[in-house]
Amino acid sequence: MDLAQALLDGNRRALAQALTLVETGGPQARSLLSALFAQTGRAHIIGVTGAPGAGKSTLVAALAAYWRRAGRTVGIIAVDPTSPFTRGAILGDRIRMQTLSGDPGVFIRSMASRGRLGGIARATGDAVALLDAANFDVVLVETVGAGQGEVEIAAAAHTTIVIETPGAGDDIQAIKAGILEIADLLVVNKADRDGAEQTVRQLRAMLSLADPPADGWTPPVLTAVAMRGEGIEAIATAAERHLDYLRNSGRFTGREQERAAHELRLILQETALERVRARVSPSEWEALIAQIVARTLDPYAAADHLLERGLSHSGE
Amino acid sequence: MDLAQALLDGNRRALAQALTLVETGGPQARSLLSALFAQTGRAHIIGVTGAPGAGKSTLVAALAAYWRRAGRTVGIIAVDPTSPFTRGAILGDRIRMQTLSGDPGVFIRSMASRGRLGGIARATGDAVALLDAANFDVVLVETVGAGQGEVEIAAAAHTTIVIETPGAGDDIQAIKAGILEIADLLVVNKADRDGAEQTVRQLRAMLSLADPPADGWTPPVLTAVAMRGEGIEAIATAAERHLDYLRNSGRFTGREQERAAHELRLILQETALERVRARVSPSEWEALIAQIVARTLDPYAAADHLLERGLSHSGE
Repeated sequence: MDLAQALLDGNRRALAQALTLVETGGPQARSLLSALFAQTGRAHIIGVTGAPGAGKSTLVAALAAYWRRAGRTVGIIAVDPTSPFTRGAILGDRIRMQTLSGDPGVFIRSMASRGRLGGIARATGDAVALLDAANFDVVLVETVGAGQGEVEIAAAAHTTIVIETPGAGDDIQAIKAGILEIADLLVVNKADRDGAEQTVRQLRAMLSLADPPADGWTPPVLTAVAMRGEGIEAIATAAERHLDYLRNSGRFTGREQERAAHELRLILQETALERVRARVSPSEWEALIAQIVARTLDPYAAADHLLERGLSHSGE
Repeated sequence: MDLAQALLDGNRRALAQALTLVETGGPQARSLLSALFAQTGRAHIIGVTGAPGAGKSTLVAALAAYWRRAGRTVGIIAVDPTSPFTRGAILGDRIRMQTLSGDPGVFIRSMASRGRLGGIARATGDAVALLDAANFDVVLVETVGAGQGEVEIAAAAHTTIVIETPGAGDDIQAIKAGILEIADLLVVNKADRDGAEQTVRQLRAMLSLADPPADGWTPPVLTAVAMRGEGIEAIATAAERHLDYLRNSGRFTGREQERAAHELRLILQETALERVRARVSPSEWEALIAQIVARTLDPYAAADHLLERGLSHSGE
């Protein structure tokens, strides 16, 4: 496939086009990804998550700039609707973005997170695969951390960085319990604010009380003032150390298996839904919906009925 | 089915048991829901969404108390990991919760949002159906609004209430653009704080600049101090007015069709995945994953291979 070859050859227009294709989804996107899959598996995939306003984009930009100086190429995917990356840097973050723009060793892509119910996790995984195939050394995925998004990103990443801010208040305590389960690195950003040390202490206390991590890695708690570039080197180094740990401890394969199983489940679900829809005429679909609304047919029976027809590719 | 009948008879233990069943998912959950589906369609389903700390739980509790005084029964589902409902009211919200506890006309359920990748939307829809079948007049679904969660809840609700707080800052602007698309009611909570009027003005200005709403309903912008019960009646009344509007304008059927299509898609995806897994032995699944990790098989081809076997119920 020409598009796949152009992407592998480093053509950035081809990469952009491929990303648009996988954002839309469908059989063409799948055959592209299928063709490129053998070229993936080299990048260090890092998820960055945290509440709105925690400074995720600034930290991502600073990490990207750090790794560029170290001679590594960086791909960035923003699935955070509050991200300045996502909004085309309309939010006064232009200056920080400018340090990255114009550098062919950086590629930034935002994913639309509206109107694609359930499909964003799939599309994000596909985008990561494309950047990996396009030979970026590090792929950073920024996602807003509140609910399901952060769990999804942890399932798709090698290393998950969770960002907190000082004195985020009691409300955040509840999140933290869940976040400890997914964080490989904890960063207290905006550490020049009051209460930063206390937040660090709290996080360390929570970690010491939690069950020993299943993979044997205790997440370090680091501080940063991402806006001024402070603490960035330590975070980048810790992320690299985490990857080394995974590799040296033999845990890397386990993480890769989890990632693959997660991917395969998402692909199965999306493909199954797509094939069902391809076999059902719009009028038949509407008739089923009308029966469900009238409560003369339940959606579980409707699903059974539709799946009875089989989903083999040859039947399409 | 005994459990279904007990639930319909108003047995709260049966309801709790049924909710646990649908949270786990699987064929037993589906046959329960299938049996109860004809009894759904009566409740007013209201989604309440907003950023962490916006006061969603307090507002939900206040709305529930208001509707109870008006003689209506209220079911509450919290899918927000920061919700005191979800955390068993550990966060100092005990007093507000107590006004509801012990009242058989209120039922509160929190949904675990961890470890069930992609399944939370499905489980939430199922829980709504159970509360609807159990004859609750109003079903309130609290979800954290940041990214995909709020889109999911809007797709599952009749009326979506979006909560903002004064001066939430520039970061929130980006969210708002997306939120306008899903909000049927906008509430500026904590309206005794500085900047409340400005936030109301900003929201109204954004609404006036936005495209005219597709369904002809212009979301009102209301203020509240939920902690003190201020503004609650106006919000409850506006929610009821929205439902009346849907019914009188003939839009209700359209909203129900969207809800049914959303449900059916989720059920199709989950059922398809479950059937694939039921047909594949653990060792075969592991072998496929190992090939994907080794990049000798791509996950799209693996999915094709698995779907070739058909997904008919009879084959199980």
